[in-house]
Amino acid sequence: MQWIAGGVTAARGFTASGLSAGIKVSRRPDVALVAADRPVTAAAVFTTNRVQAAPVHLSRARLQQGRARAVLLNSGCANCMTGAAGLRDARTLSRAVAKSLRSPEEQILVASTGLIGTRLPVRRVLAAVPELVRQLSRARHLEAATAILTTDRLPKEAAVEATVGGRTIRLGGMAKGAGMIAPCMATMLCVLTTDAAMPAGLLREVLREASAQTFNRLSIDGDMSTNDTVFGLASGRAGVTITAGERARLFGRMALEVTRKLALAMAQDGEGVTRVAEIRVSGARTDSEAQRCARQVATSSLVKTMLAGGDPNVGRLAAAAGASGAGFDPDRLEIRIGTRRVVKRGTVVRLQPKLARRLLARRRVRIELDLHAGRGSGWMLTTDLTEAYVRINARYVT
Amino acid sequence: MQWIAGGVTAARGFTASGLSAGIKVSRRPDVALVAADRPVTAAAVFTTNRVQAAPVHLSRARLQQGRARAVLLNSGCANCMTGAAGLRDARTLSRAVAKSLRSPEEQILVASTGLIGTRLPVRRVLAAVPELVRQLSRARHLEAATAILTTDRLPKEAAVEATVGGRTIRLGGMAKGAGMIAPCMATMLCVLTTDAAMPAGLLREVLREASAQTFNRLSIDGDMSTNDTVFGLASGRAGVTITAGERARLFGRMALEVTRKLALAMAQDGEGVTRVAEIRVSGARTDSEAQRCARQVATSSLVKTMLAGGDPNVGRLAAAAGASGAGFDPDRLEIRIGTRRVVKRGTVVRLQPKLARRLLARRRVRIELDLHAGRGSGWMLTTDLTEAYVRINARYVT
Repeated sequence: MQWIAGGVTAARGFTASGLSAGIKVSRRPDVALVAADRPVTAAAVFTTNRVQAAPVHLSRARLQQGRARAVLLNSGCANCMTGAAGLRDARTLSRAVAKSLRSPEEQILVASTGLIGTRLPVRRVLAAVPELVRQLSRARHLEAATAILTTDRLPKEAAVEATVGGRTIRLGGMAKGAGMIAPCMATMLCVLTTDAAMPAGLLREVLREASAQTFNRLSIDGDMSTNDTVFGLASGRAGVTITAGERARLFGRMALEVTRKLALAMAQDGEGVTRVAEIRVSGARTDSEAQRCARQVATSSLVKTMLAGGDPNVGRLAAAAGASGAGFDPDRLEIRIGTRRVVKRGTVVRLQPKLARRLLARRRVRIELDLHAGRGSGWMLTTDLTEAYVRINARYVT
Repeated sequence: MQWIAGGVTAARGFTASGLSAGIKVSRRPDVALVAADRPVTAAAVFTTNRVQAAPVHLSRARLQQGRARAVLLNSGCANCMTGAAGLRDARTLSRAVAKSLRSPEEQILVASTGLIGTRLPVRRVLAAVPELVRQLSRARHLEAATAILTTDRLPKEAAVEATVGGRTIRLGGMAKGAGMIAPCMATMLCVLTTDAAMPAGLLREVLREASAQTFNRLSIDGDMSTNDTVFGLASGRAGVTITAGERARLFGRMALEVTRKLALAMAQDGEGVTRVAEIRVSGARTDSEAQRCARQVATSSLVKTMLAGGDPNVGRLAAAAGASGAGFDPDRLEIRIGTRRVVKRGTVVRLQPKLARRLLARRRVRIELDLHAGRGSGWMLTTDLTEAYVRINARYVT
């Protein structure tokens, strides 16, 4: 398996485009299209939030058939809490794309990200659809990746290829940030494409597992937004069919590599983020308790501000672990920052202030908690909470 | 029932003092003593964190007998994660207080707040104990309330009196802030005193219920710290004994009034806080789901930064509710800010920007979510998340 260029069009059988339709006042790119040359296998995982945006409802319904021709994405407006009118808007836009592509309307998927509660400027987007379709090209993956950004600073792309039975299969994709990472429940969106062939059920399972191991391990205010969506499209153009066994495991690893890279890019590109921390918990009674503990540490405002300041107040780590509900004997707790042990048998290790400050001085740090209560383990990726984050999120509407 | 002055010494039979022992580098007051004239009924509720400070362990053990003579409190050091040495330190200090008061050591309770992982400067505190005891007076309640502060700006006191069977009973207390409100798991500490007489079991039950309704409704990073403690001391000097029935209900209401005032003072005095919001959830399937929903909204960083900016991005409220796990139909969700409906049947109500900004312009706001799924209700008190909060918490150790 190796990294290749090309993002969402790295796999054969896909084209993409992105431009400004005028949804964003800034006139930055805000609509993207990812299209397959013909109808392909399709699947997705969606937010588990009770409140779900119109495009989530529409795409979920359409994916029951497991086939799709294209995905229309927009930034600048989440099309969420917009009632029946919002659903009509999403349908209207997908119909225009279907017409331009000469495809059944049911094969067009949609996704939106941006402010909740505002309507899409449908006419403006409709006016942009013909140009969006005209510009579709394998070369325009970066334009598409750029058009789905909200407050992200950089487009996020990744792609890999591997050899199966003498043939090369590819998997690539694009994404934008989420939650704490990007603001205003601005949504995590991701589109993955592959030229391997596989049943929609398997594709969905791979998306689910890769998301659980990567996107869902990012600290995003504790929960999924109203629009989070990860789409997968499989063209089959590589001439390799994946159903189970060794091939399915390899494909799962490919998806994991791509989504891991995209998730890390989201964390690093988070609003006001200066530091990314990996929180590893071991020695819990169960994996589930370990994960709960890692999540509590990763989402603690006190831990996140500690990361911002770079000053290792290790009591905050222990207090968050103790509040997580995970069972452990506090007198056996061990904590490491990087390779340095900072809590030993429940007692804080005194360090020289100069040495202490060096522990969190890097842009990526690793914090390990060993609960010494069993063999369960878990981990989360988190970011620091800075004044810049507050500044950006305190003013987002007006 | 009416408000009176006097804080933790408003009830007869109690004295207090507070001074600087040199735990804080700033030389601000950092040790407080609350003493009863003779051994009195005592109870407490403690943090449910797995990681608990040495004074929590010591006080819990001593309260098994339900009697106490005094409470020694310090700020500037949490005496937590300090191992066996920390427990020895707490014992040593309590022994010195016991000796000065000519009381059995087992009747001295202790509480600490401040940085986790540092040892108490025992010699300095020991040197201050005789003066602390000498200064004990009914007049020095404010000195005691001041000496337990960490980053709080103002001391927090409250007291009420009521008439029972022709006699006056009093209940008063002092407190300091907690969690998101005060930093670094800096602990919520509270000491309540009354001159009514009652069994320790009833006193504990009243403390538990009042805390559940007030302190535990404050958004404090999601969980209790390692040191949180609410002490109750009952001198019986009013000549009124409370065991059950109408008297117990009146006393419960008195405790609720006092703790409610202290909790609100904590919220308003929180680090960097400019706005306090009451989050009310109704129409949930159960009270427990309503409370979960209120907690999710109250602890959301996106809601808290929205409060800081004063810009009502109501999608953040709905998204937090939807992520809470409470069951409801998003198409029936209603949200009000103050008296203004901002979400109607799941759809955001469009408001003039000028009017929208006025909704969150006050220092205290009320946000109501009606899930229209049942009769369950719940509420939380939360504060805004400002740049000042991050600034304070990013640098707390050095």
